[in-house]
Amino acid sequence: MKLVQGGVCAAKGFTAAGINCGLKKRKPDLALIFSETPCIAAGVFTKNIVKAAPVEISKKRIGKPIRAILANSGNANCCAGEKGLKAALGESQAVAALLGIKSDSVLLASTGIIGKPLQVEKIKKAIPKLVSSLSKSGNKSARIAIMTTDTFPKEIAVSLDLNGKKVTIGGMVKGAGMIHPDMATMLSFVTTDVKIEKSALQKALKNAVSGSFNSISVDGDTSTNDSVMLVANGMAGNRLLRQGDAPYNKFCGALDFVLAELSKLIIRDGEGATKFVTIKVTGAKSDSDARELARFISTSSLLKCALFGEDPNWGRIAAKAGSAGISFKMDALDIYLGDIKVLSKGQAINIDSKKLKDLFKKKEIDITVNIGIGTGEAVCYTADLSYEYVKINAEYE
Amino acid sequence: MKLVQGGVCAAKGFTAAGINCGLKKRKPDLALIFSETPCIAAGVFTKNIVKAAPVEISKKRIGKPIRAILANSGNANCCAGEKGLKAALGESQAVAALLGIKSDSVLLASTGIIGKPLQVEKIKKAIPKLVSSLSKSGNKSARIAIMTTDTFPKEIAVSLDLNGKKVTIGGMVKGAGMIHPDMATMLSFVTTDVKIEKSALQKALKNAVSGSFNSISVDGDTSTNDSVMLVANGMAGNRLLRQGDAPYNKFCGALDFVLAELSKLIIRDGEGATKFVTIKVTGAKSDSDARELARFISTSSLLKCALFGEDPNWGRIAAKAGSAGISFKMDALDIYLGDIKVLSKGQAINIDSKKLKDLFKKKEIDITVNIGIGTGEAVCYTADLSYEYVKINAEYE
Repeated sequence: MKLVQGGVCAAKGFTAAGINCGLKKRKPDLALIFSETPCIAAGVFTKNIVKAAPVEISKKRIGKPIRAILANSGNANCCAGEKGLKAALGESQAVAALLGIKSDSVLLASTGIIGKPLQVEKIKKAIPKLVSSLSKSGNKSARIAIMTTDTFPKEIAVSLDLNGKKVTIGGMVKGAGMIHPDMATMLSFVTTDVKIEKSALQKALKNAVSGSFNSISVDGDTSTNDSVMLVANGMAGNRLLRQGDAPYNKFCGALDFVLAELSKLIIRDGEGATKFVTIKVTGAKSDSDARELARFISTSSLLKCALFGEDPNWGRIAAKAGSAGISFKMDALDIYLGDIKVLSKGQAINIDSKKLKDLFKKKEIDITVNIGIGTGEAVCYTADLSYEYVKINAEYE
Repeated sequence: MKLVQGGVCAAKGFTAAGINCGLKKRKPDLALIFSETPCIAAGVFTKNIVKAAPVEISKKRIGKPIRAILANSGNANCCAGEKGLKAALGESQAVAALLGIKSDSVLLASTGIIGKPLQVEKIKKAIPKLVSSLSKSGNKSARIAIMTTDTFPKEIAVSLDLNGKKVTIGGMVKGAGMIHPDMATMLSFVTTDVKIEKSALQKALKNAVSGSFNSISVDGDTSTNDSVMLVANGMAGNRLLRQGDAPYNKFCGALDFVLAELSKLIIRDGEGATKFVTIKVTGAKSDSDARELARFISTSSLLKCALFGEDPNWGRIAAKAGSAGISFKMDALDIYLGDIKVLSKGQAINIDSKKLKDLFKKKEIDITVNIGIGTGEAVCYTADLSYEYVKINAEYE
């Protein structure tokens, strides 16, 4: 497996474009990804009861042959009722007509403010220009057109050899805060030319999301628009991948890598983030218990403030761990900051505070929590909580 | 029922004191409440697995006749293992010896940083001065001695007539952030001279806590030291209160009021708080569903930032409501900001944005969420998330 250029356009048969359609003042706000041939698709969507219109529509279409993904920033198209659904259907009809494809072969995504009507006429008017802009280097503008509070575009692509055939996976993501309900934060689109069974693709995506986007947290909130979409057009010409095959497992490994890297980019661009924090939980009854606990710890505002202040206040970790609803015994609890053990079997170890303070001055901080029950473990990534986070979210327009 | 002066000393037979014992540099850090006669006691304690030593001890003693409550700030005495337990037992022995009471008639509480050894010798050394300072006006220093990041002391007392006998309830509380694991935040001590059955007292306290301290949130974190203790010495001379009696219900009403007022004081002193926010959930299947949803909404960092920024971004409320795990239908969801309906049956209502912005400029903001299922309702109180909150918690020593 090696890194390649091109993001969502890296795989065979995919082009993309990103332009401004007027939802934002000047910056690109409308993105399109197009495949020469029909794709099978897989998706993971927000579980929030309050769902945006494009989520409702895309969930229904994901089982059908897919040719395009149309996404806008600047408006979430959420809480708009029938009008919102109509607007979303309208934009997919418009782009499908021009591309000469079926309307239900277009997946949709939106991100931006909730509760304002989507100015769909602006999108429709811009579609001819959008379609004519499709190109093999369109990933560069598309990845910008999906940004909201993101401070840099986020993409990655890899290629790997599957029995002599080159297979490519490329993706982009937006979402500076994970996960922001009003900005309808986390959107990720991944394209691949692999030939694969449909159920195998969905399984590969679900697993990869669990170890990536579902293992990061900026503020613990869950969006109305979160969507991860993976489309595969089969143009690599490999022998059809099935679950359990060795080449399938190799593909899954590469997909895991792509999604994990994209999710880490979100943390690095976390709103106001100054630290990249890895929280590892070990000794849990199961991996899923470990993941739940790691995620719970990673949402503590108090811990995040301490990280921002470079204050090695591990008491906040112990206290958060103890209130997660995951059962363990206090006298089995170990905590490490970096490689330094600060709590052993529930008892504080007397550590030179300068040593800990120096550790917390680093940009990358590792925290390990062992709850001493079993062998389950998991890793989550998070960021600190800074003045800048408050500022960004107090003044979001 | 009427408000009276005196806090925890207002009821017959109670005295108190607060002094500096050296855990903090100058400010009072050690508090004592004493009853002339044995009390029955009730308590509600943190459910965190990681519990401080004084919590472990007080939980065991709460069933016994109680004469005193000893509390310190400056150190949580948590994660200190056997040494922490020994330190806590040592301080209660020292104060009991001097007061001429049994060691297990002393309830204990600590608040401050986790994981540093409690300098119990300082406490022991200060106990003679503490005991000799006990007085009927000692509530004034005791209420200060339990403070951490609190910016003002918090107490209240009321008296009421129960069949011709005057009964008094007085309480104090500390906890600027609700609830801070490292500062082991929320401590409340309530004294009363009512004569009451033990089981009736515990029930009254549990109900009162549910509508007060369990209905507020500053940051959603749960402390290792949270304790609410209620002691009743019976000196009012009223006829013994039993559950279901009319005078018992009258007493419960007054206790509910005392705890609710104390809990609101915590929110008003919430770390960096600039807003007092009331979140009401209606239309839930049950009151407890409504309370769970209201509490969940009240923990959203995004909503709290919007409140600080005076940005009427109700999309954050809708999104948070939808991800609480409480089932409802999106097309039954109504949201009000103050009296203004902004979401009706899941659809945004077009409101003059100046009107909403003016509403969010107020210090007191009411938010109502109706999920349209049943008749369950509940109210929670919270504060906004400001730069000051980050500052206080980034730089806490």
